[in-house]
Amino acid sequence: MTRTLPLALAVLATFAAQAADKPTRIPDAALKAAAELRERGLKDDTAWDFTEGLTTEVGARLAASENDAKAREWVAAKFKALGFDKVWSEPVTYPKWVRRGEHAEMTAPFAHPLAVLALGYSPGTPGGGLSAEVVGFDSLDALKAASDDSVRGKIVYVGPRMHARKDGGDYGKVGSPVRVNGPALASGKGAAAFLLRSAGTDDNRLPHTGVTDFEKATPIPAAALSSPDADLLERALKRGKPVTIRLALDCGIEGMYTGANVIGEITGRTKPKEYFVMGGHLDSWDPGTGAIDDASGIAIATGAAHLIAQLPKRPLRSVRVVAFANEESGLFGGKAYAAAHAKEIAHAVLGSESDLGADRIWQITASVKPSARDAVAQMAEAIKPLGVEYDASAPGRGGSDLSAVHAAGMAAVSLHQDATRYFDWHHTANDTLDKIDPEQLRQNVAVYAVVAYLAAEADGDFGSAPNAFPQDGKE
Amino acid sequence: MTRTLPLALAVLATFAAQAADKPTRIPDAALKAAAELRERGLKDDTAWDFTEGLTTEVGARLAASENDAKAREWVAAKFKALGFDKVWSEPVTYPKWVRRGEHAEMTAPFAHPLAVLALGYSPGTPGGGLSAEVVGFDSLDALKAASDDSVRGKIVYVGPRMHARKDGGDYGKVGSPVRVNGPALASGKGAAAFLLRSAGTDDNRLPHTGVTDFEKATPIPAAALSSPDADLLERALKRGKPVTIRLALDCGIEGMYTGANVIGEITGRTKPKEYFVMGGHLDSWDPGTGAIDDASGIAIATGAAHLIAQLPKRPLRSVRVVAFANEESGLFGGKAYAAAHAKEIAHAVLGSESDLGADRIWQITASVKPSARDAVAQMAEAIKPLGVEYDASAPGRGGSDLSAVHAAGMAAVSLHQDATRYFDWHHTANDTLDKIDPEQLRQNVAVYAVVAYLAAEADGDFGSAPNAFPQDGKE
Repeated sequence: MTRTLPLALAVLATFAAQAADKPTRIPDAALKAAAELRERGLKDDTAWDFTEGLTTEVGARLAASENDAKAREWVAAKFKALGFDKVWSEPVTYPKWVRRGEHAEMTAPFAHPLAVLALGYSPGTPGGGLSAEVVGFDSLDALKAASDDSVRGKIVYVGPRMHARKDGGDYGKVGSPVRVNGPALASGKGAAAFLLRSAGTDDNRLPHTGVTDFEKATPIPAAALSSPDADLLERALKRGKPVTIRLALDCGIEGMYTGANVIGEITGRTKPKEYFVMGGHLDSWDPGTGAIDDASGIAIATGAAHLIAQLPKRPLRSVRVVAFANEESGLFGGKAYAAAHAKEIAHAVLGSESDLGADRIWQITASVKPSARDAVAQMAEAIKPLGVEYDASAPGRGGSDLSAVHAAGMAAVSLHQDATRYFDWHHTANDTLDKIDPEQLRQNVAVYAVVAYLAAEADGDFGSAPNAFPQDGKE
Repeated sequence: MTRTLPLALAVLATFAAQAADKPTRIPDAALKAAAELRERGLKDDTAWDFTEGLTTEVGARLAASENDAKAREWVAAKFKALGFDKVWSEPVTYPKWVRRGEHAEMTAPFAHPLAVLALGYSPGTPGGGLSAEVVGFDSLDALKAASDDSVRGKIVYVGPRMHARKDGGDYGKVGSPVRVNGPALASGKGAAAFLLRSAGTDDNRLPHTGVTDFEKATPIPAAALSSPDADLLERALKRGKPVTIRLALDCGIEGMYTGANVIGEITGRTKPKEYFVMGGHLDSWDPGTGAIDDASGIAIATGAAHLIAQLPKRPLRSVRVVAFANEESGLFGGKAYAAAHAKEIAHAVLGSESDLGADRIWQITASVKPSARDAVAQMAEAIKPLGVEYDASAPGRGGSDLSAVHAAGMAAVSLHQDATRYFDWHHTANDTLDKIDPEQLRQNVAVYAVVAYLAAEADGDFGSAPNAFPQDGKE
């Protein structure tokens, strides 16, 4: 997005427009129907069946892999089988990064195999792998402060330690920055390769993969160690003798690939062009089967839309479910969606994506125009019986795949899942169906169904307009 | 052991001898010293340092591997460094089973990689692996009931489900029988290979290996699936279409190997030939670093003996720590120990081995002569402040590596760890140092130190004599 107005002016213009608004309200009849939807959601297993099916019949869905295409077909067929009014795809192009295998071992002062996974966009190691001494750092700041001489030619190890939190906050604050920015930083100092303690909260011998960013640096081989392997490396380093590791990564980028966002819609009866948008992302990392990240996200939205479709009549506005392409390696699907729908931003009345697993939703927050705050409070009241709290003071940006369209001006609501367990499994082989609790999944469906339906039935809008939320657009 | 007396006569003879016994008692001075040992144990990190060192400096210790020899040297050096009075080895010979690698994938009706580990003594698959249809069973009984025709040429899958229990009881009742006996049973019916749901209580994508028994059957390739992979296989089977798996195991027996039991002793001051024996096993399975199974077992015994060695004077009797060879693939070290020390069975006044992790000891049970029951009650009283209950009605067979010597007539005491978490990690890559809680480990040391010391100071014995516990010898 290019912003042509200075920020302060844009904010003033937005507030001026909002001041004249008639408050958005949700009619009583819609609230009554929502209460029924809520109860039906708690008994509905459409989302479970979706997640079970996608993880069993397709499985891992690395972007640009064979299963990426299989998953698009599977989801489109499911939308049709569930009776969605419209099902279509919109092309999305992204790099094809391929993992063929990886191997790591400590060779001195002690011999140990090490459990590693290459990071997304990591190049491979030169034929047969590389061996180098390890230099360890507690944090990115410590690496930043290190001299190039102390790092050059070595394998840099950085050991962040995440703690489990209900809001999953340590991922953004601690784990993800090391994984995303650490390899480029080490590369800039001449490191041979980069290892991190997995960005996770578990103690399993299963590394957490994820994307890294080499846009401004020469790519170097980069991989994550499982937490127990990171412990072992740290104990070896503490002994003060040189620690060497042999690292062999067989992976890399093989050109570009065109996938798609797969979209299903329940068409509104009076304002079909306006819509509530929800969804999740279709791709997953490859070690697991992408159950919590993010089959369940699409499943929750699909289950919610299906419940709405079973009502005696369609809501006023449309309800749209998007299975976004390649979220994991750069939000490609979300960005493509925003670009494709930039001109109709006011039609996207409100949106919310599910991409934090499927444990109970405990909080709702929203970024809407001031005159739609009361309508959000009405939504919050309607999902309060499901154990959801409303924090009216916090923004709600709608989730990773909707961040681009929200930045372009779509009003958004965030339905926050309890993330306490999520980063135990995120991006690991442990992201499998058994990590989903059917009862909590149904609570998610009930919440999404109510919010989607009420947005589709609201008398008034939520403030979607080009660049309507400039403070969020900056992120 | 060959028993020459009919069982009933042996029991009578034993009771007759016991009836004449003067009750064994623990002197007040010993109880007082034990109370001090107990408090010192709760502050002592010798066991932690031992476990940290063995898992860091040696790591995985598959019997007959290079690390088996490294570990023997490491432990002998540690016993010497800690000031044990005598350190020696006794040879033990066993098969050398080697794991070179494994691979499994579901090929129809859906394509999925599968996380597997070959079982100990499994032969490899023919070059390049085998592909076959899967036939699934809920239990060994269901497999037993199946016709040979329904199994012949297929991959048999059996899916036991263990639940976490404080006493770890599901391992012996549910998990271990399928792993130990399932492959031979399937082989007898002409199966091409055998897979089981791992004998474990976790939901991690990490299979549990372990030994299987082909003594009475033609060996067939046999491996464990992780629990989420077993779930996936069961979901595929439920769809009713043929499920095929490609299985490639590169493993097998390469002749015989001679390792050793490594023994350290604190020599008693008045009865040096009599001893309390404790320990753990030196070997581990190869995917992890053998922290809970069983570096911690040797560590607890070593920590306890070291505490006793630091007393102003040696106890009356000796205290012996044995690091047993190759427990995992057939109790070879324990059997060799029993054979080597059969003639001096009465010298082994009492024994207890630690092989159930390092979580808190919650119960003491004993198999001793009736006139030594009061002495055991005195021991139990001395460890009651550590949270240990005494169940006077249950036997105490001393643990896996002492089962042979107990069967030969050594009195034994069992110090039961809380096994609730143990089978989450047992025989997996997750058996690593981080699974050990230093505080609970110290409680174990305190318990073992008190029991070992009181046995070494007891006025009277516990009933060790050839075939003294015939009811246990039958097991």
